[in-house]
Amino acid sequence: MKIKEIKSITDLDRIKRANLINSITGISPANLVGTISNDMKENLSIISSVVHIGSNPPLLGFILRPSKNTRRDTYDNIFETNQFTINHIHSKMITRSHYTSAKFQKHESEFDKCKLTPEYLNKFKAPYVKESYVKIGLDLEDIQLIKSNGCRLIIGKIKHIFMPHNAIHKDGNIQLELLDSVAVNGLYTYYSLNKVAEYSYARLNDPFFKKY
Amino acid sequence: MKIKEIKSITDLDRIKRANLINSITGISPANLVGTISNDMKENLSIISSVVHIGSNPPLLGFILRPSKNTRRDTYDNIFETNQFTINHIHSKMITRSHYTSAKFQKHESEFDKCKLTPEYLNKFKAPYVKESYVKIGLDLEDIQLIKSNGCRLIIGKIKHIFMPHNAIHKDGNIQLELLDSVAVNGLYTYYSLNKVAEYSYARLNDPFFKKY
Repeated sequence: MKIKEIKSITDLDRIKRANLINSITGISPANLVGTISNDMKENLSIISSVVHIGSNPPLLGFILRPSKNTRRDTYDNIFETNQFTINHIHSKMITRSHYTSAKFQKHESEFDKCKLTPEYLNKFKAPYVKESYVKIGLDLEDIQLIKSNGCRLIIGKIKHIFMPHNAIHKDGNIQLELLDSVAVNGLYTYYSLNKVAEYSYARLNDPFFKKY
Repeated sequence: MKIKEIKSITDLDRIKRANLINSITGISPANLVGTISNDMKENLSIISSVVHIGSNPPLLGFILRPSKNTRRDTYDNIFETNQFTINHIHSKMITRSHYTSAKFQKHESEFDKCKLTPEYLNKFKAPYVKESYVKIGLDLEDIQLIKSNGCRLIIGKIKHIFMPHNAIHKDGNIQLELLDSVAVNGLYTYYSLNKVAEYSYARLNDPFFKKY
């Protein structure tokens, strides 16, 4: 492959630059974030920025764009109720999940418009997605303003995990290939996953280092 | 699939909980972060937390664990030089990339120990990975302490992108399947990617919504 610099990234037109920078990180996890407002308006939003923050306490985060000029129902709902859910997208629900990104009115529920089913479990306020195989319920832990561009890092503490127990390896790792979880690159392209390699904790006395 | 709650997550032993919480986000991008210290000690670190922060200015971020009790060469180098690189991992370099996570001494270079090649381009201080097909050079934009657990969100502004130009779609999206970029789940399991669906910006007048 012939590798060359992309000159003048900032000269690209707005859409092309946005797509390039959105996709250049590599693959992202495809998740749906479920929330509800205090007056019981449900919201569902496809989010590709979910990231592991820490294991003890168990913290996950995701990035939300600035809420200055646009309605941000997900942000408002989390701010109001202090709860949200993260739900894995599998291959049979990609289309319905993708279309949650359309600009609906505040009174319209993405669940309803996109034919996904809100599910309430263990008296948790925020709705899970019934169709998902992996559902995580989180309490809001913190909201950090990213000063560089006004985005926010939403951090939640995991309170509940619902998933098929047989998809958890005995070492605790979940097995995405058994769960049919999918991935997204940029805003529009979805990928399925094939396991190609598995290792353990990298130690200096591993055979790998003896080869050289 | 029979979906049930995982009871008492916090009762799991430390390793099992760490693996579960590390893998529960879904898939992550597999990248190598390249840095150098002021006294020219190179460092290379596999990072699965790279996330898109914004497109204009073009900002990417990643999470680093607390540096309290452990040497964190990546953090120290970025703090010293204000530069770092992000390099996609492809299928032929998974093993070498995985082993950069072994605990080397400060004077040892992961490039050397893991048989990857530092590459200096356009007078950028931080080393790229010659073997990678997608190489991104970033200036440090900000370091945000995550108060919840002492981790840090390192934010960089993209200055240079080197990659095969024919892997960029005309809309600006990069095509991961042409680049052989791989993904990681948790700390130990690597996946290749198959494109399964492609959409465009979701509009309310799309045929999808007329089906119902």
